[in-house]
Amino acid sequence: MKHTPNILVVNDDGITAPGIKALMDVVKELGRVVVVAPDSPQSGMGHAITIGKPLRLDEIDIYEGVEMYRCSGTPVDCVKLAVNKIFKGKKPDLCVSGINHGLNNGINILYSGTMSAAVEGAIESIPSIGFSLDDYTLQADFSHCLKYVREIAMQVLANGLPPATLLNVNFPAGAHTKGIKICRQANAKWAEEFDERLDPYKRPYYWLTGVFQLNDHGEDTDSWALNNNYVSVVPIQFDMTAHHAIPVLNSWTFNV
Amino acid sequence: MKHTPNILVVNDDGITAPGIKALMDVVKELGRVVVVAPDSPQSGMGHAITIGKPLRLDEIDIYEGVEMYRCSGTPVDCVKLAVNKIFKGKKPDLCVSGINHGLNNGINILYSGTMSAAVEGAIESIPSIGFSLDDYTLQADFSHCLKYVREIAMQVLANGLPPATLLNVNFPAGAHTKGIKICRQANAKWAEEFDERLDPYKRPYYWLTGVFQLNDHGEDTDSWALNNNYVSVVPIQFDMTAHHAIPVLNSWTFNV
Repeated sequence: MKHTPNILVVNDDGITAPGIKALMDVVKELGRVVVVAPDSPQSGMGHAITIGKPLRLDEIDIYEGVEMYRCSGTPVDCVKLAVNKIFKGKKPDLCVSGINHGLNNGINILYSGTMSAAVEGAIESIPSIGFSLDDYTLQADFSHCLKYVREIAMQVLANGLPPATLLNVNFPAGAHTKGIKICRQANAKWAEEFDERLDPYKRPYYWLTGVFQLNDHGEDTDSWALNNNYVSVVPIQFDMTAHHAIPVLNSWTFNV
Repeated sequence: MKHTPNILVVNDDGITAPGIKALMDVVKELGRVVVVAPDSPQSGMGHAITIGKPLRLDEIDIYEGVEMYRCSGTPVDCVKLAVNKIFKGKKPDLCVSGINHGLNNGINILYSGTMSAAVEGAIESIPSIGFSLDDYTLQADFSHCLKYVREIAMQVLANGLPPATLLNVNFPAGAHTKGIKICRQANAKWAEEFDERLDPYKRPYYWLTGVFQLNDHGEDTDSWALNNNYVSVVPIQFDMTAHHAIPVLNSWTFNV
């Protein structure tokens, strides 16, 4: 008898976001689904974990027939609690994160709670995929993403992923996607433009805003693929060593 | 006349931590120092940014003769605000983060606010270094670290760093350090052990605890160097693409 895959579904937009509902509805056709998601939006939380205060994890029942938990912590906390307290060491066969309301291409992977949850899944040796759509609104239409989510999840369940590797999948908005491109992370950054205001007591405060700056003309990047209406798939690793820089540093003489 | 370097000092343990005082006292001999640090401890914040609420940035005067600001946000927010609102686009010549109370070797780089602040400095094209000591206590003794901090900071000011690269420097505890080793990030992870308790209303809550698992026998890793009483220096990049996995994924056939 074929083993029914156990699939962990997480996100950073919170347990009530439409994106996680869309993702859950696709992958529940592929196995037994457990959803563990933050009880409130956690966009931009990156790889944060909660160490200075305790965590809550409560089973809830908002979508019929789906095992679901809300967590008071970050997206990465959700994965850690799921592995340790729900799956109890029996690792899920797949971890999917998203579908994020907003792109996580280029440098966004570092800031993204969605992608950090998938990275944490990979650190736990679980084949992991983060999905994101180029639409920040709560009204985002995920319908054109679903066949890709299903296909990529099925391929990962069938083939596995290279060791210590996960996938970062981004979707352009709108129905006219031209297919999948395997890409590298674009060289890009945010140019910050803090919006300075005064509170009612005349003290300044700042809203973080900015413009995404693409500093990369390559046609093999996630940004290029998205700008040309492809679904971008970037394999991601969590060894951050700049291996090429080791010989440079070894050529330095430290007078100490 | 030689240009006086502008040096941004950040951390994740907060503006009153002894580690940032130790770091500031070393680098203020090398140039003009501006300290921007969280107003409260932000350990484990990773690369989190604050997007759902506004930020405060207030100049304070706790150490004589040093330009200092406390920030209500994360370590990465501190760097963004410093670059945008304090240096106003005139990039500092060096960004140093720490000295962290606790190691940031191996996989800890992903969870670390200290290292994420340094990564953000590097994203801003500022030569950046994160420093961490193997002592979590507020009473940590940083005295044996100082000559290394000075030497590494001077080398980076003199030589720069390869593009899109920063340094992750970790110190063993105690005075008997044997010198500097250039290393790669060790393959390691945390094995979580959530401490489950009941609140006064009999509802469960969880404290995140765990054990650092070194899954790497290499003698070229930061963990090996630290276990053998060397100062570890790992060059870090923020391109997270698993380039070696691109051909693997290109060999898959997506039926979509």
